[in-house]
Amino acid sequence: MSGLLSRLGVRLPIIQAPMAGTSTPQLAAAVTEAGGLGSIALGAVDAAAGREMIAAVRRGTNGPFNVNLFCHRPARSDPTLNAGWLAALAPTFASFGAAPPAAISEIYTSFAADAEMLAMLEETRPPVVSFHFGLPPAAAIARLKSTGALLLATATSLAEAQASVAAGVDAVVAQGWEAGGHRGVFEPGAPDGRLGVAVLTRLLVKQVPVPIIAAGGLMDGAAVAGVLALGAQAAQLGTAFVACPESSADSYHRDALMGPGAVATEMTDLISGRPARCLPNAFTALSETLQATPRPDYPIAYDAGKALAAAARARGDGRYGAQWAGQGAPLARALPAAALMAALERELELARRPS
Amino acid sequence: MSGLLSRLGVRLPIIQAPMAGTSTPQLAAAVTEAGGLGSIALGAVDAAAGREMIAAVRRGTNGPFNVNLFCHRPARSDPTLNAGWLAALAPTFASFGAAPPAAISEIYTSFAADAEMLAMLEETRPPVVSFHFGLPPAAAIARLKSTGALLLATATSLAEAQASVAAGVDAVVAQGWEAGGHRGVFEPGAPDGRLGVAVLTRLLVKQVPVPIIAAGGLMDGAAVAGVLALGAQAAQLGTAFVACPESSADSYHRDALMGPGAVATEMTDLISGRPARCLPNAFTALSETLQATPRPDYPIAYDAGKALAAAARARGDGRYGAQWAGQGAPLARALPAAALMAALERELELARRPS
Repeated sequence: MSGLLSRLGVRLPIIQAPMAGTSTPQLAAAVTEAGGLGSIALGAVDAAAGREMIAAVRRGTNGPFNVNLFCHRPARSDPTLNAGWLAALAPTFASFGAAPPAAISEIYTSFAADAEMLAMLEETRPPVVSFHFGLPPAAAIARLKSTGALLLATATSLAEAQASVAAGVDAVVAQGWEAGGHRGVFEPGAPDGRLGVAVLTRLLVKQVPVPIIAAGGLMDGAAVAGVLALGAQAAQLGTAFVACPESSADSYHRDALMGPGAVATEMTDLISGRPARCLPNAFTALSETLQATPRPDYPIAYDAGKALAAAARARGDGRYGAQWAGQGAPLARALPAAALMAALERELELARRPS
Repeated sequence: MSGLLSRLGVRLPIIQAPMAGTSTPQLAAAVTEAGGLGSIALGAVDAAAGREMIAAVRRGTNGPFNVNLFCHRPARSDPTLNAGWLAALAPTFASFGAAPPAAISEIYTSFAADAEMLAMLEETRPPVVSFHFGLPPAAAIARLKSTGALLLATATSLAEAQASVAAGVDAVVAQGWEAGGHRGVFEPGAPDGRLGVAVLTRLLVKQVPVPIIAAGGLMDGAAVAGVLALGAQAAQLGTAFVACPESSADSYHRDALMGPGAVATEMTDLISGRPARCLPNAFTALSETLQATPRPDYPIAYDAGKALAAAARARGDGRYGAQWAGQGAPLARALPAAALMAALERELELARRPS
């Protein structure tokens, strides 16, 4: 069945999700070495840092890996909106003896408008490239294809999957509403059907003519077996890898993941300006007071969110971080990546054995 | 693996979900005759009507079947709240040349407070009894157990599943947020983790010591295979059966299910006073104007909702009905129940074959 696995060059139907700020080249290399597909996230870095991350993966493995890019519509900066948002956050900054930044800006460039990143990828030629928050321009897709890269795109709906296939991607990541971190919706203001991973996978498998990779809340080998039975050709797991020592999650994030809030993740757009699933913390709790205040575009709002997290951390309070996690968080395991991959493989084998 | 199937007395791991107002004794009998477990919903009827429904199932099959009961906390009627709600709906009634009812009330009794229903069940002894919206008092559970009935309860969270097991139920229906119709939350005002079916199933399989039945967005045999791989012992499908000729769905409901809105089901509490997943229609579209108006308790609000649907239908407008459906609605098939069950069995077999 699995054309996708041979095209990816992997033995196991398991992709470690790219997680900007949390996944690392070391994590990606360890996953690839264990037979899955490791991923690095270049969404929040520039071309020079991206080049170094790609080199770091290659120092850890000769195998394939995936490079993920954010393809949102570039932010529109509205000074009045920005000032209003900073004013709304000011009391929380003040509780840490701090003031909001004087101004906030688009802290990183969308791949849809990043010529240097594209040129760097043409040079470094990663074997797999994936898109999140939408698709890059047709010319960028054509240039990436000419490097031989296999192209993936996140879709949260049938319409987004169809647009991805029309643009030429080779496989679609079906991101269920359960997924941790940023929801990949192309248009954050549009109505969102919030489809669960099982429904979305089944729908796309039946209606889209490329391989489907299921994502969202998948934490163990039985979950991988489940989405394979639904017709996916691979599973993408993110939160499952957050507690690995190879991730760059800070201790506050790890503690929150292993704590009682894991059963109650929330979708919030307060932290970054785009909906993302987070462990409940002091930042998500601001939703009551901030719900009526319009947020600046992503990632301008994230500039404020990161400043607030830093102000809190400076006073020893880690509860304002972007502690992304999916609904499967209660099943997270703190294992080295190689041990986790071995467990996933064993569990997958067991779950696929005919009963 | 499947202790549950032998205890239910069925050949296939497929339960037709009870759907008050939509499922029928004829549908239940046809599903049971095809090797699954048919269900009837007694949540919105009294003991006399329930007795007749049980007899009607038995006229259609000698096999097992499930009788479902609503166990919500009995409604508290607040005349001011009721009047405010009716006033908010009045312009919509007026658009059909009608007025809202003068008063609204608790149109049916919770099983938690229905001695006649309990006595009828002790007499008629259905082989399987299931609870939704919570659990009945301990004495009712003990009396049902003494009839020999296998007891099931819907849970949307680990805490609800644990409460169900502590109360003595034999298996738990893990209802994902994808599911159509009324969400089974015990306490509708409490925070809701909105767990998807895959995550919830995995969580309960690992942490609850009774068999798990997965529900929510499951539409075909591959979806059944998927939840079995996740560790469920059976799948419960509701929306998959709505378009069967044996259901009592009206033509408006059937048309909406087969129409373009199927990809965009919404969770709404406008129609009944409790969250329920519905095809998008003119009633769900009232959410913009009504979102700030407090709703009367379920099922008092449903009294108003049913009156509005009737007023609209009287003018040939079917867009105000309780057109419940799960997120899997785009995969609905209009087949007789026996043909649908045969297709599900074939698809399940295919999906479970080792690749």
